[in-house]
Amino acid sequence: MHDNRVSLDHIRAAARRIASYVHRTPVMSSRLINAEAGCDIHFKCENLQKVGAFKARGAHNAVLCLTPEQLARGVATHSSGNHAAALALAASHFDVPAYIVMPENAPASKVAAVRAYGGRITFCESTQAARESTLETLCERTGASFIPPYDHPDVIAGQGTAALELAEQLDPAPDFLLTPVGGGGLLAGCAIASKALMPDTAVIGAEPAGADDAMRSFNSGQWQPQTSPDTVADGLRTALGQLNFSLIRANVDAILSADDATIIHATRLVWTRMKLVIEPSAAVGLAVVLAHPRHFAGKRVAIVFSGGNVDIDKLPW
Amino acid sequence: MHDNRVSLDHIRAAARRIASYVHRTPVMSSRLINAEAGCDIHFKCENLQKVGAFKARGAHNAVLCLTPEQLARGVATHSSGNHAAALALAASHFDVPAYIVMPENAPASKVAAVRAYGGRITFCESTQAARESTLETLCERTGASFIPPYDHPDVIAGQGTAALELAEQLDPAPDFLLTPVGGGGLLAGCAIASKALMPDTAVIGAEPAGADDAMRSFNSGQWQPQTSPDTVADGLRTALGQLNFSLIRANVDAILSADDATIIHATRLVWTRMKLVIEPSAAVGLAVVLAHPRHFAGKRVAIVFSGGNVDIDKLPW
Repeated sequence: MHDNRVSLDHIRAAARRIASYVHRTPVMSSRLINAEAGCDIHFKCENLQKVGAFKARGAHNAVLCLTPEQLARGVATHSSGNHAAALALAASHFDVPAYIVMPENAPASKVAAVRAYGGRITFCESTQAARESTLETLCERTGASFIPPYDHPDVIAGQGTAALELAEQLDPAPDFLLTPVGGGGLLAGCAIASKALMPDTAVIGAEPAGADDAMRSFNSGQWQPQTSPDTVADGLRTALGQLNFSLIRANVDAILSADDATIIHATRLVWTRMKLVIEPSAAVGLAVVLAHPRHFAGKRVAIVFSGGNVDIDKLPW
Repeated sequence: MHDNRVSLDHIRAAARRIASYVHRTPVMSSRLINAEAGCDIHFKCENLQKVGAFKARGAHNAVLCLTPEQLARGVATHSSGNHAAALALAASHFDVPAYIVMPENAPASKVAAVRAYGGRITFCESTQAARESTLETLCERTGASFIPPYDHPDVIAGQGTAALELAEQLDPAPDFLLTPVGGGGLLAGCAIASKALMPDTAVIGAEPAGADDAMRSFNSGQWQPQTSPDTVADGLRTALGQLNFSLIRANVDAILSADDATIIHATRLVWTRMKLVIEPSAAVGLAVVLAHPRHFAGKRVAIVFSGGNVDIDKLPW
């Protein structure tokens, strides 16, 4: 894919490409959570995805879109999160290197996760400038292809396969589809698939109040990437991507936010009621439903649990 | 059922009876856990069962085996654990009371769980004698039927439906089937179903080293219920039931144990690798496999995760 458009066809092609590498994740529900939320919720469990996050979808699609020559030289990214682990796993299937630039103060658990999947880590200073220059040098030296975590059409098309599956798994279609929004790859991809396959479903981005650049950008019509996020949902502290913003403007109905107390409450509900480990970022969809009860009362609601990678020695409660 | 025999027919009848009240739970696996364990493990996720534990199976079957006259007067038990919540849920379907005798020092979380399912709690002193006399008085006064947590053929037949499903879900049959053993209802019921449907599968009870009365009883041939259990696996501190012991002797191949450090390690592995909340008792099957690597090397292994009810504010690590 060589332009910035992402269509249902691209998402369908991504689904075929990645099918043998990622899980078709289950959709689960909870009677007790429905009773508390006052609506009928169906959760798409991307916490049960490979590497514990939807990021496996986009990373695999992007790797599988490379030419054989590009693939042979490996892939690279700067990330301390789920995208790095996903890219390392995707590269490992083809026995090519995944070069991961990480800040020298990255948590040991994240370093271990990337290493477990075979990623080759280069540490750098913990500044955006250091990350970018280290990555650039690395790509020049090795010839590796940079696979960004969200601002890339192949990555967005890959993330959209989660909604493609949801459309097959839910009958009738839900009244609402909510996904968390950080960089915006998951929301953009899912919104494109959802609008094409379930045109009557309202697509809503769910964002922490302490990192609400997507909501501010969406409501003002001006891209306003955040600079100082403050939220327990560590996976959503990233600034909204520019390509993602334009796709979100075109395909999303609303962006709603929830505060950290509600996000933590929603995380606990899922752990205790559904016996699923989700990271706080993954609970933001449910938190938004709980924070806006009249908006969703009595409705059929689909929510994407984005991931389950959380340090179980340092829980947020 | 009016005698103490439990056969495949009883378990099949239980499965038909409870089908609309309990979940057919999924079987999941983890590449990373397989790599660590050195075998091919398939986990039956009873942590995702109604009330978060396999106990929903036996409680529903026992309630559904009552006559309409018995059912109308309600059910009763003494328990501070998953069986009490399961019985309360089962009774709620028929709008009959579930009387639960609990020690006055029972954890608030367990009291809340029983109340959430509509159980009517009577508190008593925290001794076995007080529990039994309080329950007896209560049953005399109300006419409620006592549904014991494990030492009862209808309960055992209900728990055995987990293995009935496993036999349908796994093809080919596994070399080994492991379930935790506390009172012995799950192991006895699953062993009967497994021996009938998968005769070449070795059935193994998994027990904490600090509560190994089933292993001592099995190896000596003498029922030796424990009196002073000491293990993190709180669901398995119960003494082995007498009926359960006779069924286990007849249908189980071996009982193996694991220490608490291995049980905690196994619990953490499942939380972090599989994103599933399981209670330490549920991890004992995996702990036994990790503690006896040569026994299971290269084999196809089925393990029942018994439940996921754990206080997430007081984790065992």
